[in-house]
Amino acid sequence: MEKIVSLCKRRGFIYQSSELYGGWNGFWDYGPNGAELKRNLRDTWWHAMTRFRDDVVGLDATIIMHPSIWKASGHVDTFNDPMCACKSCNKLVRADQAWSVLEETRWFASLAATFDPASTSCNEEKLRKWIPRDGSQHAPNLALIRDPDAAFGRIAARISSGAPLDVRDFVQTLATSDPASGWRTPCPHCGGELGDAKPFNLMLKTNTGPIASEENVSYLRPETAQAIFAQFKNVFDSSRVRVPFGIAQIGKAFRNEITPRNFTFRSREFEQMELEFFILPDEAVELICGSVLPFTEGMDLSEPKPNWGWEVWHRYWLKERTDYYRSIGLPTEVLDFYWQSEADLAHYARATVDILFQFPFGCEELEGIAARGNFDLSQHQTHSGKPLEIFDEELKAAAANLDEKQREDFIQKTHANRRKPETTIEETRAYCESLFQGCYIPHVIEPSAGLDRLALAILSNAFEEEKVTDAKGKEETRTVLHFHPRIAPVKCAVFPLLKNRPELVAEAKRITALLRRHMAVYYDESGAIGRRYRRQDEIGTPFCVTVDFDTVGENGPENQGTVTLRHRDSMEQTRVRVEDLIQILSAHLAP
Amino acid sequence: MEKIVSLCKRRGFIYQSSELYGGWNGFWDYGPNGAELKRNLRDTWWHAMTRFRDDVVGLDATIIMHPSIWKASGHVDTFNDPMCACKSCNKLVRADQAWSVLEETRWFASLAATFDPASTSCNEEKLRKWIPRDGSQHAPNLALIRDPDAAFGRIAARISSGAPLDVRDFVQTLATSDPASGWRTPCPHCGGELGDAKPFNLMLKTNTGPIASEENVSYLRPETAQAIFAQFKNVFDSSRVRVPFGIAQIGKAFRNEITPRNFTFRSREFEQMELEFFILPDEAVELICGSVLPFTEGMDLSEPKPNWGWEVWHRYWLKERTDYYRSIGLPTEVLDFYWQSEADLAHYARATVDILFQFPFGCEELEGIAARGNFDLSQHQTHSGKPLEIFDEELKAAAANLDEKQREDFIQKTHANRRKPETTIEETRAYCESLFQGCYIPHVIEPSAGLDRLALAILSNAFEEEKVTDAKGKEETRTVLHFHPRIAPVKCAVFPLLKNRPELVAEAKRITALLRRHMAVYYDESGAIGRRYRRQDEIGTPFCVTVDFDTVGENGPENQGTVTLRHRDSMEQTRVRVEDLIQILSAHLAP
Repeated sequence: MEKIVSLCKRRGFIYQSSELYGGWNGFWDYGPNGAELKRNLRDTWWHAMTRFRDDVVGLDATIIMHPSIWKASGHVDTFNDPMCACKSCNKLVRADQAWSVLEETRWFASLAATFDPASTSCNEEKLRKWIPRDGSQHAPNLALIRDPDAAFGRIAARISSGAPLDVRDFVQTLATSDPASGWRTPCPHCGGELGDAKPFNLMLKTNTGPIASEENVSYLRPETAQAIFAQFKNVFDSSRVRVPFGIAQIGKAFRNEITPRNFTFRSREFEQMELEFFILPDEAVELICGSVLPFTEGMDLSEPKPNWGWEVWHRYWLKERTDYYRSIGLPTEVLDFYWQSEADLAHYARATVDILFQFPFGCEELEGIAARGNFDLSQHQTHSGKPLEIFDEELKAAAANLDEKQREDFIQKTHANRRKPETTIEETRAYCESLFQGCYIPHVIEPSAGLDRLALAILSNAFEEEKVTDAKGKEETRTVLHFHPRIAPVKCAVFPLLKNRPELVAEAKRITALLRRHMAVYYDESGAIGRRYRRQDEIGTPFCVTVDFDTVGENGPENQGTVTLRHRDSMEQTRVRVEDLIQILSAHLAP
Repeated sequence: MEKIVSLCKRRGFIYQSSELYGGWNGFWDYGPNGAELKRNLRDTWWHAMTRFRDDVVGLDATIIMHPSIWKASGHVDTFNDPMCACKSCNKLVRADQAWSVLEETRWFASLAATFDPASTSCNEEKLRKWIPRDGSQHAPNLALIRDPDAAFGRIAARISSGAPLDVRDFVQTLATSDPASGWRTPCPHCGGELGDAKPFNLMLKTNTGPIASEENVSYLRPETAQAIFAQFKNVFDSSRVRVPFGIAQIGKAFRNEITPRNFTFRSREFEQMELEFFILPDEAVELICGSVLPFTEGMDLSEPKPNWGWEVWHRYWLKERTDYYRSIGLPTEVLDFYWQSEADLAHYARATVDILFQFPFGCEELEGIAARGNFDLSQHQTHSGKPLEIFDEELKAAAANLDEKQREDFIQKTHANRRKPETTIEETRAYCESLFQGCYIPHVIEPSAGLDRLALAILSNAFEEEKVTDAKGKEETRTVLHFHPRIAPVKCAVFPLLKNRPELVAEAKRITALLRRHMAVYYDESGAIGRRYRRQDEIGTPFCVTVDFDTVGENGPENQGTVTLRHRDSMEQTRVRVEDLIQILSAHLAP
């Protein structure tokens, strides 16, 4: 990971925000190459989700919205992390991360390196040495345990009880003043005792309006999805779409993470790419099509069908998203798929699958694809008091074909299949009657991806330090980013072999200008050609073109008008005609 | 303007943010067509500013940065608007906008419509009728003047003084309790008296970190430019650039406008497109080139030259930006250029030219191009305590050629030309000695544009209600957006002539898929063909393709494989071969 962070800074991918002023915790800036990488990822997502489809439109909403939206969505009341305050230093720590933050301290690392469980039972001197105290060389991140004698007493009591004592037990016992209350992770900042966990809302607050008041408290959106629900009706009314259809949005979101960490993975300001894909409730599908197609492993998901229910649509989007990741260089082999269990699922969710990537710091989520029922639109209908139902002529016509008996059967069957046991038959009946009139609140499948996470996954996956042998037989390390050409910040670099030969320079500049109309190119004339290749390898440029004496015809007409095309991954060089360049390169850039 | 606002909502360009909950003042969302329009504008700007140039790189920094950045930039201390509190209703009004906000009220409009200066001198009854009071039908936006008798007394006194009384005088006199203190604009919310103007900081504040404290107060950036200055050194060190070069950024910014207005023109959340173009100080240019090229009207600005000083660079960027606006359909004829006078200029600015557009609500700024000297980098150097000077080998070498006498002459000349009279000869000497060593803080030219303003200008400029005569000779109104094809949300719509003819539908869908790899297309099969054209006119689609019986060869081989290409602006229809479509359309989309 350190190597990636270092490369990111050195080659203009990612800098710490406000580094000039010592940084600002949880914020990261993208330099010239990072900005292009992000742009390319945004574009590929947007094209895959909107332009290349008939059934998805875009939205670009504000970061700050009416606070009622966050009341309706549940964020005001429940978007919390459990947080503990340290009784000694008063710092706050996210309860579920306290231990892993502590493990990242230098103190813990040096303790773990020397700690020997076998010797703890007999060696008081050693035990006492491990207890951090003021000035202790190996505890630079940890203040002293206030009462080392008492801490030692607890350790000794624990040892004499015969329970095994590993480094983790040791550290927890150190920090626990009352062993009867159970062990606790000590404060990772000072080693003190952490208090009980309390909920802490993760939304960043501000006030819009000249004077701060309760009335104009606003939140920086913690996700882009809610704007899609809030504008659902406007989009529906102004876009000539019919369910099933989706609304896609890319934009910044903010979470006041208690402990931002893992480079850009968990930061306070980040960018999301979210799609809300609205579908008919299964009951409406059944009315229209007679039945709902069940999902079966290996079924054809290439073309949406009218008889798909939420389960098949959910699988469809998993396939679409997996295809997308493959198209930008993250094949299924480097991904992992985690199906949330019933216990993991939010109460309104029917199924959620997380797409994971093996980051250097662990296997973590890139995207979640959730079947959310009609929870969000229903909440907004309730809180706004405005109907968010849509009318479907086809559904009404289908229901009109049913006789009294069939309707009653449908109601009874729907009731038997109800998701919540507390739903009354009257509620089911009202819901079905509404369907018979052609009215319903659409359900939704939500593929929600993090752009910064994706960029970091792309960087991690592309990074390689490769042993290569140079022309003189010397072995050296080549640092290379194996970006898919579609997302590489620079698609092609163009070099004149020598910068002091005007005819080479002129031709290289001409080719640069030619390619520039079609793709991001970089012209470079300084340094040995091998060094120029290496520089491009480090920023992941898939192709380099070199203009040499053959190109300008100085070695005869045979190779005139051809250049050397060097491929980043294989380092192979081929000779191609200048007029074929655009076509050859474009073939690699097409989706 | 109302027509544009209405079209924007109806056709999915712009909605009020959080409309479902009554809106949130100063925030606007972009619907499907608006999101595409903005994307296209962003892309054209980014391509013009970075991809098509050798000397500009991108940056994508966070919205929230270290607060010291805003201290250094001056925003914490001086980014204020003058604000008045109403003594009656306590609402706050921006002092310099109070009058124009009042003029937009229905009350004022109806008063102005009936007000007759000639009759005010004699007609007490009429005068009293114009004074708004509780329940007054024509004063729905204005509460009553608390003491109508006193207000009438003031009016009467003013009339008897013989001074002319127009509607504006009348309204001001109404609201002024003490005429000796001078007239004042009444509160546009209630007609009450406004207090003295006080400075009000326009930055939105938040807290990053688990508990709000002075230490973690942060601001939502009020401009994107400062991140460029703060990351100048990182970009310089990681990007192999040399001065002159630029750093470009597009992103959201926030200002807590007291009275957001004019649709999206002045909103609280908006998007900026800013370039900071770093150049050598004129003294360095002189050392290297022997002299600085003066600006002359009509000089060649097509290719930057080493002997350009700030003045020519400033003109160059004005030309570049004007060319850009032309390339997206805003030719010089619809723009205006305002050169700020010495009195307008910020103290550090050397020149600023504003590019204006005639909006329906007045001629307002689209972009400002400022020559800012080295103010920003100097401020950050001072506040961060870290050097932001760069070293230029060529400059050092040039200075090394000067003898003692020439150096002294250079120092004296520089001192004679100093911008600030208070600069001491010692300061000038130190500055020059630093230059002789090849070191300097770059100066900057800043073309800074507003994306939302640009989108609104593009919409306003494109909007037309045109009288046309239909096939039956009936005159009707055609609403059309004459977008430049490069920025139109949809480039081409594809229609089968009839939706119940499978061979037409299949061919239209095939063409849609074909075009979709290259541009944004829209497939539509419903309604009469004329209505489909009109729908595309309303969203500014420059081209429509219709698949008819000729296309599929039903009228013989002559026109087989051709389609009707309909041009939005001329409404002309031409027959073209399907295989030529991509080339014909792409020619209109190239920059």
